Amino acid sequence: MADTTRLFVLRERPKGALDARTLELTTRPRPSPAAGEALVRTRWLSIDPTNRTWMDPVDGYLPALELGEPMRGIGTGEVIASETDALPVGAHVSGMLGFAEHAIVRPEEVTRLGPHDDPKLAVGPLGHIGATAWFGLTEVGRPEAGETVLVSAAAGATGSMVAQIAKKLGCRVIGTAGSDAKCAWLQDALGLDGVIHYRKEALDGAIARHAPDGVDIYWDNVGGPLLDAALAQLALGGRVVLCGGISQYNAERPVGPAAYLHLIRQRARMEGFLVLDYLPRLEEARSAIGPWLEDGTLRFAWHEVDGLAKAPEALGLLFSGEHEGKVVVKVAEASR
Amino acid sequence: MADTTRLFVLRERPKGALDARTLELTTRPRPSPAAGEALVRTRWLSIDPTNRTWMDPVDGYLPALELGEPMRGIGTGEVIASETDALPVGAHVSGMLGFAEHAIVRPEEVTRLGPHDDPKLAVGPLGHIGATAWFGLTEVGRPEAGETVLVSAAAGATGSMVAQIAKKLGCRVIGTAGSDAKCAWLQDALGLDGVIHYRKEALDGAIARHAPDGVDIYWDNVGGPLLDAALAQLALGGRVVLCGGISQYNAERPVGPAAYLHLIRQRARMEGFLVLDYLPRLEEARSAIGPWLEDGTLRFAWHEVDGLAKAPEALGLLFSGEHEGKVVVKVAEASR
Repeated sequence: MADTTRLFVLRERPKGALDARTLELTTRPRPSPAAGEALVRTRWLSIDPTNRTWMDPVDGYLPALELGEPMRGIGTGEVIASETDALPVGAHVSGMLGFAEHAIVRPEEVTRLGPHDDPKLAVGPLGHIGATAWFGLTEVGRPEAGETVLVSAAAGATGSMVAQIAKKLGCRVIGTAGSDAKCAWLQDALGLDGVIHYRKEALDGAIARHAPDGVDIYWDNVGGPLLDAALAQLALGGRVVLCGGISQYNAERPVGPAAYLHLIRQRARMEGFLVLDYLPRLEEARSAIGPWLEDGTLRFAWHEVDGLAKAPEALGLLFSGEHEGKVVVKVAEASR
Repeated sequence: MADTTRLFVLRERPKGALDARTLELTTRPRPSPAAGEALVRTRWLSIDPTNRTWMDPVDGYLPALELGEPMRGIGTGEVIASETDALPVGAHVSGMLGFAEHAIVRPEEVTRLGPHDDPKLAVGPLGHIGATAWFGLTEVGRPEAGETVLVSAAAGATGSMVAQIAKKLGCRVIGTAGSDAKCAWLQDALGLDGVIHYRKEALDGAIARHAPDGVDIYWDNVGGPLLDAALAQLALGGRVVLCGGISQYNAERPVGPAAYLHLIRQRARMEGFLVLDYLPRLEEARSAIGPWLEDGTLRFAWHEVDGLAKAPEALGLLFSGEHEGKVVVKVAEASR
């Protein structure tokens, strides 16, 4: 057992939603690092909507995964064997470790965590999730105090951070979510100015009621009918920040926003971004967000799933909406 | 006869394309200017795709026209009676004169043309058409020399100016058009770097062939399949300038761009604008474009229709694509 490792490979491309045939757990000999490499034991695996997009047969912002190839995933872990001084045994790193118990990495492929960095926070508010929210909001959305910000999937990992950061920046914030419990959390714990239960309420009317002067920034994690409803109620000079489109990732025939011509009427823009481009500036996001986490004025909810074997199930949660907070898989216990 | 005027009113809202019941030509007593007003005799009426959008029962960037209300339209004309010193008899103005032989205007509602301004050019390259192309391209598209610009409806009024201005600014320019004659004009007279006959060629393949490194700026006058094809081939940091969506204006169920998620992958933006916002800066566009018109290095094609009665037919040309160049209706001969 000590000489093996387990990992998921892409076995079949999903047609629509993932099923049991999509990812296959395989056991292989544990690899050893070659010169310049280190062996990392994965501790936390981040489960992100974008994981689904990597399974499609077309290249996206990363090349399409080949069938049989190890499944990609963002995680943090600890170096347990090393052939590079840059990553000594005991160092913690974050990066593309895969849906896997172990990963061979080179120093330039990962970010080394500081001695006081919590490896769990590094796949959440102080890692790519925090950076997504911070840079997407401040650099693409560019909010002004007093503006109205509508956040989709506001109880999710990224959405909850966007909503809270927008509040910190002086905006009125309206969030959407798909369960009573999530809506209550947004209202009571996060103190949003308006909450919309998208499964229960007519979107157009609800947005108009909460944003009578229009939506200055719409943060889109979902696409579909909510994107259309938000476009139709953009304020003059509005901005749609395209972070994701989870309603479309399982669709065999994606649907575009029929209301896009409102971008003309409202002199508005819709802009996409990828957090990858901002990771070299991660420290900026961390220094803004860190103090808010420490003083307790920024909340972050976790949905923890135990054991690598449950990673596909964990990914499925993002599409059913049964999770509450950031979905992570605990792949191994801490050694420190 | 001298005391009457003719104008079109919106009689029935079109379901889809305009038909003979949409606009009705009526004869009325010619109005007289009250204090502070002037009576203008329309000379040139501009026929623009956006005319169609004003007929829909929903407010756009202008309020929806009511049934029975005079049809709006942009035109130039001459003051023939006046009760305001700001608009003396003989002055030429441009503005919302309507689909009408005469208009009552107030000085703040129109732009007074200079003594050497050609009233026809003022509904074309030195008026709102030139401003649309100039400000949309330079302020929204923001081209850099060497970039690839794809222009839809490139043989049309706005498209032909965008294409030529982009060439002047050092871009590689690809244009789309829907007839052999238009394609030949784009290639031979305007010297574009690539021309796509959108009715004959598969869009994806044609764009890829002409823009192997992707499209930096896509100028969208049309929406529909061309917008999707352009989105799918945007370069990193690409920009979609939304000027119009003529393929959607007659649609009872508009279709959105299913390929919009490429905006994320390519860190790209899609942005709408209205020339109205830039009209106070019209002189900037005129001083850039004027010299190119004078030295003959910027071409502008006219499709002239004679007589107000043919205005609805002229508007229909924009949707059938049977026009070649800027469609204008000559409502009256010049007096000067």
